[in-house]
Amino acid sequence: MYFLLLVFCALSLPGNLLAQEKNSLALMPMPANVVQGEGEFVIDGNFGVALEGYKEPRLERAQQRFLNILSKETGIPLWREAIQNQPHFIIRVAGPSAAVQQLGEDESYHLKISTTDVQLTAPNPIGALRGLQTFLQLVRITPKSFSVPVATIDDQPRYPWRGLLIDSGHRFVPIAAIKRNLDGMEAVKLNVFHWRFADNLGFHAESKKFPLLQEKGSGGFYYSQDEIRDVIAYARDRGIRVVPEFDMPCHTTSWFLGYPDLTSGKDPSHSSAIDPTRESTYVFLSGFIGEMAALFPDSYFHTGGDECNVKEWETNPRVQEYMRAHSIRNGAALQVVFTTRVQKIVADHKKVMMGWDEVLQPNTPKDVVIQTWRGQDSLAGAARSGYRGVLSFGYYIDLNQSAAEHYLVDPLGENAASLTLDQKVRVLGGEATMWTDIVSHENMDNRIWPRTAAIAERLWSPQQVQDVASMYRRLAIESQRLELYGLRHRLITDEMLERMSGEVDPGPLKVLAAVVQPPRMYQRQELRSFSDFTPLNHLDDAVPPESDTAREFSEIAKRIAAGEATPQDWQQARQWLVLWRDNDAKLQPLLTRSFLTQELAPVSRNLAQVAAIGLQALDDLHENRFVKADIRQRNIEFLESSEKPQAVLLLMIASPVETLVQASRSQ
Amino acid sequence: MYFLLLVFCALSLPGNLLAQEKNSLALMPMPANVVQGEGEFVIDGNFGVALEGYKEPRLERAQQRFLNILSKETGIPLWREAIQNQPHFIIRVAGPSAAVQQLGEDESYHLKISTTDVQLTAPNPIGALRGLQTFLQLVRITPKSFSVPVATIDDQPRYPWRGLLIDSGHRFVPIAAIKRNLDGMEAVKLNVFHWRFADNLGFHAESKKFPLLQEKGSGGFYYSQDEIRDVIAYARDRGIRVVPEFDMPCHTTSWFLGYPDLTSGKDPSHSSAIDPTRESTYVFLSGFIGEMAALFPDSYFHTGGDECNVKEWETNPRVQEYMRAHSIRNGAALQVVFTTRVQKIVADHKKVMMGWDEVLQPNTPKDVVIQTWRGQDSLAGAARSGYRGVLSFGYYIDLNQSAAEHYLVDPLGENAASLTLDQKVRVLGGEATMWTDIVSHENMDNRIWPRTAAIAERLWSPQQVQDVASMYRRLAIESQRLELYGLRHRLITDEMLERMSGEVDPGPLKVLAAVVQPPRMYQRQELRSFSDFTPLNHLDDAVPPESDTAREFSEIAKRIAAGEATPQDWQQARQWLVLWRDNDAKLQPLLTRSFLTQELAPVSRNLAQVAAIGLQALDDLHENRFVKADIRQRNIEFLESSEKPQAVLLLMIASPVETLVQASRSQ
Repeated sequence: MYFLLLVFCALSLPGNLLAQEKNSLALMPMPANVVQGEGEFVIDGNFGVALEGYKEPRLERAQQRFLNILSKETGIPLWREAIQNQPHFIIRVAGPSAAVQQLGEDESYHLKISTTDVQLTAPNPIGALRGLQTFLQLVRITPKSFSVPVATIDDQPRYPWRGLLIDSGHRFVPIAAIKRNLDGMEAVKLNVFHWRFADNLGFHAESKKFPLLQEKGSGGFYYSQDEIRDVIAYARDRGIRVVPEFDMPCHTTSWFLGYPDLTSGKDPSHSSAIDPTRESTYVFLSGFIGEMAALFPDSYFHTGGDECNVKEWETNPRVQEYMRAHSIRNGAALQVVFTTRVQKIVADHKKVMMGWDEVLQPNTPKDVVIQTWRGQDSLAGAARSGYRGVLSFGYYIDLNQSAAEHYLVDPLGENAASLTLDQKVRVLGGEATMWTDIVSHENMDNRIWPRTAAIAERLWSPQQVQDVASMYRRLAIESQRLELYGLRHRLITDEMLERMSGEVDPGPLKVLAAVVQPPRMYQRQELRSFSDFTPLNHLDDAVPPESDTAREFSEIAKRIAAGEATPQDWQQARQWLVLWRDNDAKLQPLLTRSFLTQELAPVSRNLAQVAAIGLQALDDLHENRFVKADIRQRNIEFLESSEKPQAVLLLMIASPVETLVQASRSQ
Repeated sequence: MYFLLLVFCALSLPGNLLAQEKNSLALMPMPANVVQGEGEFVIDGNFGVALEGYKEPRLERAQQRFLNILSKETGIPLWREAIQNQPHFIIRVAGPSAAVQQLGEDESYHLKISTTDVQLTAPNPIGALRGLQTFLQLVRITPKSFSVPVATIDDQPRYPWRGLLIDSGHRFVPIAAIKRNLDGMEAVKLNVFHWRFADNLGFHAESKKFPLLQEKGSGGFYYSQDEIRDVIAYARDRGIRVVPEFDMPCHTTSWFLGYPDLTSGKDPSHSSAIDPTRESTYVFLSGFIGEMAALFPDSYFHTGGDECNVKEWETNPRVQEYMRAHSIRNGAALQVVFTTRVQKIVADHKKVMMGWDEVLQPNTPKDVVIQTWRGQDSLAGAARSGYRGVLSFGYYIDLNQSAAEHYLVDPLGENAASLTLDQKVRVLGGEATMWTDIVSHENMDNRIWPRTAAIAERLWSPQQVQDVASMYRRLAIESQRLELYGLRHRLITDEMLERMSGEVDPGPLKVLAAVVQPPRMYQRQELRSFSDFTPLNHLDDAVPPESDTAREFSEIAKRIAAGEATPQDWQQARQWLVLWRDNDAKLQPLLTRSFLTQELAPVSRNLAQVAAIGLQALDDLHENRFVKADIRQRNIEFLESSEKPQAVLLLMIASPVETLVQASRSQ
C-alpha cells in the first residue's frame, strides 16, 4: 500500500526528488539536491572513519556521536573500532566556524557515497554535522547487509533560523530532557534552541546578581549558571544556537517574590506586570540583562513582550499619574515606552533584541527580530517595514494539530508569498513552540516528536517539497530513528497507560488510546481546568497529538468510498472495526479499577457503537446493498455527535466511519 | 487467573506473608515482617514529606529521588511541591552511617503507614533508603485515588552482601548504563556493585601511575578516575558499596600492551598470564594496587584469580627454571605463590582481599573473602575452613536461566544448609554476575532485569519466602516499575526487532520473539562463534532470557492436561495457538528482507507446525477424542525435535504442546 501511494505521489515531484522517492530514501528533512546512483556502500565491522583537513575537538566529538548512533542502529560495535579501522569514510572540513555560532552561518555540505567509499566535505564543522546526520538516515538493512545507497547529495538549508522553543517557565524541565531534545534537534537539522526561563509561577534560571529571583521564585528547581553553560556547550556541539528568553514586562509574578519593588500591582503575588514607570525598574533590568547577556553568548536576546495585561497599569493610580504626566494614552502605549527602554539596554550589552509581535512599534529599531504568533500577515508586514521575523504561528506543537497542518505552513506562505526578494530575505525562518502550560517534561517528548521533524523539513528543504503522504511515510521512519537519540515520545504513551490503569499490560486500553486524540487548539483548556501544577496523568495527556491508526483508517475509508480500495483495504478496515467493536467488553471492567480511567467508560462505549455502525456500512458497501434512509440518517447523527469531545478526547474514527456511511446508497 | 493462583499459593506461606499475599502487596524483595491493617493512605497533590532527626545531604538527595519517582508513578507533580506541603510522611533517622559504607552495616527500617500519616524510622540513612523503596512499591491506583495500604513493616536483610557484578572488562559499559543499573539495584535493595574493569581485550580504568594501561589497552574507552569517583558517590547515595575487581594473574593480555614486561609469554599480545616469577611484577602490582586502593574507598578489593591458563607458565623455560629452583611442582602451585604475594600487597594497603574460588589455598589468610562460581559445596567448604564467602554459582544471569531457577538457589542451600550457626555467619550472601562476553551495554538491561530482582529477594527476604508463582506475579509488577528508574529491559527487545527487520512495526516478528529464548548455560557459544567484538544484533540477543508467554502457556497446558483448566484457560490456549499457527504466512516475506532475520525462516515454520499440532491436540482433548497411536507418536517426535535450538533459539512452546499431546488418549 505504501509503495503504491509512494509512486503515485512521486509523480508530482521535481526530478531529483522523484528519483529519490522512487528509491525510498527515508531522509527528513529532504536535502536540496540528491542524485542517486547504482549500488550501495556496505557497513560492516570493517567500517572506518577519519577526519581530514581542519580539525577541532568538536569534530572529534561529533565523529564519536556519529559512531555511537551508527553502532546502535546496526548493533555492530563500531563506536571504538571504526576509528581504528582503515577509513573508507572521510570527513573533510575546510576551516573553522565562528567562535559563537552566527545566524546565517554556512551549513552546507557535500556527501558523496560510492560503493567503496564516502566523502563528506563541508566548509566548516556545522556543515559536517548536518552531513553526518544525513548519512545516518540513509543506513538501512538489506537481505545482504547494512548499507547506504550510492548517492551524491548537495545540501543547504532554505531558512537560516530553524528553532524549537522549550518553555521552562511554566514548568521546570530537567536538563536531561533538554539534552535529549537537543539530540533530536540535531537529528533533523534544527539550529536554534529558544530557551524560555520564567513565567508567573516560576523563575528557573540562576542570577548571581539577583539571587532572590531563583531563591524565592523557583521552589528550589532552577538551572545553575554552570548547568546553563553546559547546555550551551552541548548545543554548540550539535550546531545549535541557544537564544534565551526572559519574558517581560508581563508574565513576571515570579520575579516579584524576591523583588517586590518591580511590581506594578499592590500585592506582588497577584500582579503579573513589571512597573514600567519607575527608574529603579530599569536599573534592575540593566543589571539583570547585563548578567544574562554575558552568560548567553548568542547575539540575540529574547525579551518576550507577549500578552501583556495592561489593565494592571491602567488601574494603578501611580502609573495613571505617570501616564498623564507623560501624555501616554493607554497601557499599550506604555508598553511601547518600556520596550524602547529595554531594547536600549539589550543593545548596550551588544545584543540584538528579539520579541513577540507586540514589541513591534513605529519607533522600534530595525535590527529587532520579531517572532510572530499572529501569522504570516504579521510577518509579511514586519518584513515590508524592514524588520526581520521568525514564524511561530502554525508551529504551536502544544495545540495538538496534525503533522500535515504544521507541515503545510510556510514562513513565506500566505501573504508573505507576495514579498519582494529583499523583503523575503528578512523572513528568517520559524520556530516550533513547546509551551508547557499543560504539558510536563514527562509527556513533552510525545508533543514535540515526531511532528517537529515535519516542521524541520519545512524550514530546511526546498519549498516544493510538500507531498504530505511522502512526509508521513518518512516521518514514521524518522520517529523510530529518534529513539536511537534517547527520545521517549514512543514509549511515554505505553508507560502512562500502564500507570493510569495499574495494569502490567493494559491491552484493551491501548486499543482505545490508539484511536483518540486530545482536542486541537485551545479546546482542551475549555474542557478541563488546568494550572501549572495540575497532574497530567489522564488519557488526553498520554496519547500522541495525532492518531496514526485513525489517519490510516481514514485513508482506507476514503478509498473504499471512492471505489478505489484494494482487497487489503477491505480486509484491514474489517479487522480494525471488529477489534474496536469487541474492545468495550474487555475494557470496561479494567476502567472501573482506577480513578483516572473511569471517565473513559462512555468513550469506550462510543468506540464500540461507532465501529458497529462502520461494520454494517462496510458490509452494505461490499454487497452494494441499499440502506434505509432513516437508519442511515440516524447513524450519521450518532456519528456526528460522537465526533464531539468526551473525557477531553476526540474519537478519531467517527469521521471516517461517517465517510463509509455517507458512501452507502440509501433507498 | 492471577487471583486464583495467588490465593492457592498463599496457603503455604506463614502468617504475615499470607496476610499480605491475600491483599496483593506487590513488594519485592518481600520484607521480613508485614502486618497489614484496614484502609489506606491517600496520595494526592497535598502529599508532604519531611526529614526529622539526623540529617545529611545524602538524605535530602534521597528524599528528592523518592519524590521524583513518586511523581513519575502518579503523574502528580510532587517533586518540588511535596517538600513545601504540610508533611504527613516523616522520615526520622537516628544517626549517621559509617563514613565508608561497611559490610554488615545496619539496613533495618520501620515503616508505619496509617490512614493519616506515614512514619519511616531507621537507625541510619541506609535503612531510610531501604524504607523509601518499600513505600514506593506500595503505591497503587484504586477507583478513588493513588494510595498505599495501611501497614506496619519491620524489615532487615537476611544476608549482608547482596551484589551485582557488571563486567566492564570484556566490553566497556558506558557510565549512563552503570548508573541506571545502580538505580535498579537501589529499587530492589541490593547493596554491592562489583565492578570488573579489565580482561584480555580491554583495560577500562584510568591509572595515573601506569597510564599506558588505559592508553594502550582501552582503545580510548575507559573510566577516568573522576568518573569512577562520581560512580562511587552515586552508589553511596543509594546505599551501595563499590567493590572493584582487577582480575589477575590471568585474563590480563590488555595489561601487556602498555607494560609488556609483565607478561609470562614470548609475545605479549598472545599471552594472558602475568609472570609471577619476576620481582618487577610485584613492584608494579604494589604501585598499581596502592593507587586503586586509594581510589576505591571500600574495605574489600577483588583480585579475580579465576580460570588461569597455567600452561603458559609450564611451557615458559624461564618460569620452569624458577619453579624448579623453588620446588614449585606445577602451575597451580605457582598461582598460590602469586596469590600469597598479592594478598600481602592488598593487606599492606589496608584492604581485605577477595577472589574467586581459585584463591583459596591452604595458607590463605582467614580474612580473604571467597566468591564462588563453583557452588554451595565450595562455599560450605570455605565456611567450614573459617573463610567468609559469597555465592555467585546459580546467579550467572548471562546464562539465560529462568528467574525461578535463580530464585531457588540459596547461599545456605544444598550442602551449606548443614553448616553450624558460626559457619553460616560466614556465608555473606550472593552476587548476580553480568558477564559481557556475549552481552553488550545495549542489551545488558534485558539480561539483568527483571530476573535480578528475584535474586535480590532471595538475598534479602526470610528463607521461607520461596513461592515461585507469587514471585513471578510480583516480578511482573516490579519489572514494570523498574522503568520508572530508567531501565531499558522492556524496551530493548522491541527496538532491536525494529532495527534487525528494518520495519517500523514488525508485528509478526514480535509474535515469534515472544515465544523463543536463547539457549541456557553455555550452549549459545557452541552454536555461534563469539568474540568480544561480535555484533550482538540477532534475535537471540534481542529476546529476554525467559519467555513470559511460553511460561504462561505452559501453565495452562499443564492445567488442561491435569483436567483442571478453566474455560478461560481453554480460550486463551486456543487464541494463542491460532495466532502462532497463522503467523508464519505473515512473517516469512518480512524475514527475507534483512540479512539478520533470514536465519529465522525455519524457526517461524516450526512455530506454525507446532501450533497446528497443539490446536489439534486441544480439540482432541476438548472433545475427548481418541487419537491414532502412530500419529500421536509422530507428533511427539516432531515436537521433541522442535525443542532443539535453531538459529541459536529455543522454541519454548514445543514442550507445552507436547504436554497437550501426551495428555490426549491414544487408540
